[in-house]
Amino acid sequence: MPGGETYRSAGVDLEALDEMKERIGALSRVTHSPQVIGAPGGFAGLYRLEGYRQPVLVSSTDGVGTKLRIASLLGHHESLGIDLVNLNVNDILTRGAKPLFFLDYMSMGDLDRQRTDSLLRGMAWACREAGCSLIGGETAQMPGFYTKDSFGLAGFVVGVVELDAMIDGSRTAEGDVLVGMPSSGLHTNGFSLVRKVFDIDGDPAVLYKRYDELNHTLGEALLTPHRCYSPLVEPVLPMINAMAHITGGGLMENLPRVLPAGLCARLEAEAWEVPPIFGIVQSEGNIDDDEMFRVFNMGLGMVAACAPDDVPAVVAATEGRVVGKVVGQSGEARVTIE
Amino acid sequence: MPGGETYRSAGVDLEALDEMKERIGALSRVTHSPQVIGAPGGFAGLYRLEGYRQPVLVSSTDGVGTKLRIASLLGHHESLGIDLVNLNVNDILTRGAKPLFFLDYMSMGDLDRQRTDSLLRGMAWACREAGCSLIGGETAQMPGFYTKDSFGLAGFVVGVVELDAMIDGSRTAEGDVLVGMPSSGLHTNGFSLVRKVFDIDGDPAVLYKRYDELNHTLGEALLTPHRCYSPLVEPVLPMINAMAHITGGGLMENLPRVLPAGLCARLEAEAWEVPPIFGIVQSEGNIDDDEMFRVFNMGLGMVAACAPDDVPAVVAATEGRVVGKVVGQSGEARVTIE
Repeated sequence: MPGGETYRSAGVDLEALDEMKERIGALSRVTHSPQVIGAPGGFAGLYRLEGYRQPVLVSSTDGVGTKLRIASLLGHHESLGIDLVNLNVNDILTRGAKPLFFLDYMSMGDLDRQRTDSLLRGMAWACREAGCSLIGGETAQMPGFYTKDSFGLAGFVVGVVELDAMIDGSRTAEGDVLVGMPSSGLHTNGFSLVRKVFDIDGDPAVLYKRYDELNHTLGEALLTPHRCYSPLVEPVLPMINAMAHITGGGLMENLPRVLPAGLCARLEAEAWEVPPIFGIVQSEGNIDDDEMFRVFNMGLGMVAACAPDDVPAVVAATEGRVVGKVVGQSGEARVTIE
Repeated sequence: MPGGETYRSAGVDLEALDEMKERIGALSRVTHSPQVIGAPGGFAGLYRLEGYRQPVLVSSTDGVGTKLRIASLLGHHESLGIDLVNLNVNDILTRGAKPLFFLDYMSMGDLDRQRTDSLLRGMAWACREAGCSLIGGETAQMPGFYTKDSFGLAGFVVGVVELDAMIDGSRTAEGDVLVGMPSSGLHTNGFSLVRKVFDIDGDPAVLYKRYDELNHTLGEALLTPHRCYSPLVEPVLPMINAMAHITGGGLMENLPRVLPAGLCARLEAEAWEVPPIFGIVQSEGNIDDDEMFRVFNMGLGMVAACAPDDVPAVVAATEGRVVGKVVGQSGEARVTIE
C-alpha cells in the first residue's frame, strides 16, 4: 500500500532521535562516576549506592522557568543546561545531600541539533562540576505544542545524605548567624516579570542594550548561569543548621521555609551589595522594594544559619558574608530587613 | 511608587501556586510509605532507603508524548496522570527494580485548577497501585509558551534492585521463551501518527466517533491508560532473564535493546490477538504492516524472556501468553514475526 501514512510523515523522525541519543550518550559518559552501571538496554539509568549506613535519598525536580525564552532568543542554550543542573543540585543541598545522579527531560517541536547539543553540553559540564553523573534523560519531539522560541525542559536530581547528618532545621536556634552566599545574577527566578518590564517578547533587540552599570549587554547579564553552591558548602556541611535556596519567592518566602516556628530571620540590608542588574530591573519596571524582595534573590543565592563560633569557617568556605541573624519572632513577619 | 510592575501583573500568581501546592501535598500524602520523611522545608523529597545489601538505584524519566493533546481536547486528565506514572515504572521494571518514589514536573500557561488536580489524582492513584511514593514535583507557570490545548508534563521515578538480582540480559539464552503481556491499548506511543491519521487537530469531533469494533468512542479508546506491569511481574522477577517495555519503536526496536548480541526474537503473529484499535488506525491511515510494528505496541505492552520451565509461572502471574522464542541470529534482523 504505497503512499500510506508513516511516523515520519507525521513529524516524528525516529532515526534523527536515535542519532541524537548516541551523541547524548557520548556527552553523558564524561560525567560518570564508577558507581554508574553502563549495562546495555537503556530503559533506565543505573547507579550503585555504596558506603552509606543509613542513607536518605534526597530528590528534586525543577525547570528553568521563562529564562528559557531569553536563552532561545539569543541562541545561548549552554548556560540554560548549566542552570538546569545547578538549581536542582542547590535544592537538595539544603538538606545536606551530595548529588549522585541527574536526568533531564527535553521536549520540542523540532529537534534542532545545535540546541539539544548545547543544552547537553551545559548539563554535562555542570554535572562534572557538581560531581553528579548524568545517567538518563528523554528527548521528546512534540510537533505543534510550543510557540516560537519555546520548548520544554525539566531536570531531576537524586542525592544522598546520612540520616543523622541530614539538615532539617531542628538544630537552628536563636542567635544563629545568617551567612549569605552571593548569587551570580537573577539565577532562574523572576523572568516572567523581567520579560514584561523590558517588553522582551515585543522587541527582543532590547537584550543587546548596554547599561553603564553592567559589563555585558542586558541579555548576557540576564543569562548568567545559576550558581551551584554544592562544592563550596560541602566542606562545612556539618556546621550548617539550616539552609535556604533563594528561588521564586525570594528571601521573604524561602527563609521561613527552613526556620522552626517562633524564629525569625533579621537581615541587615547594608550587609551585602545588591548587584546592579537588580537595580536596573527595579527602575525600568518601577517595582517597589517589597516586590523586588519577594520575586528576586537580590544578590544572595543561598543563605545558611550556623552557630556564631562556626561563622569564620562557613564564610571562608562559601565565599559568603554575614547578612543577619536568627532572632525570636515578635510580630507576624518571619523575615525582616533593616 | 504606585502603579509599578508586579509578578502578578506579569502573569504569575504566587498565591494561586501556593494554594495549589497545599492541595498537591494532601493528595501526595496518601501515597507515602513509612520510608518517606516528611520534614518541613520542602526544597526536596526525602526517602529513607532501608534493608538492601548492595542497592542499585534505577531511574527513568519520560513524558506522555502527544497523547497529551487528546486528553486536553477531551478534558480527561486523570488518565494522563496514570499514564505518566505507569510508563516510567514500567521502564525501571525492565531491570527488575521495585519503584520507591516518583516526582512530576508540570508546566502550563495558566494554572487551570481542574486540570492540575485531575493530573495529580491520576498520579496519586497510579503511585498507590505501584507501591510508589509521590514525594515531590514542580508546577511552573509559563505564560506564552504553549499553543492551545498544550502543556508540559514529565515524570521521574527512582526504584531499587539488589545488584545480584538486577536483570541485565546476560542470563538470556537461545531457547528462552518470550512471554507477551497484553497492553491496554496504544499506551503512550504513536500519537503523533494517530493525530495525523484522524486529523484530530483539524477536527477534534472525530474523537466522539464510534466504531463497531470498539466498546467506546475513538477518544476513549485512545485514552485508555498505559498499563502498569510492576505488581504483576514482581512475584516472578527472579525467573525473568530479560524484559522489554514496548514503547516508541514498537516490538521491532525495543526487543533488540534487551537481547544479547547474536540472539534474535522470533515472534509468532498468530500467538496473540491485536486489539481492534490498531486495525482501525492502520486502515484509516493506510499504514503498512512494518510501520505499524515499528510505531505501536500492537497489543503487547511488555515482553519477557524466561527459561521454558518457568513459562507456566510467568504466564500465570503476568496474565501473559507465549508469543515466541529466543533463537540464534541468522540474518540481519533481530526480530522476526512469522
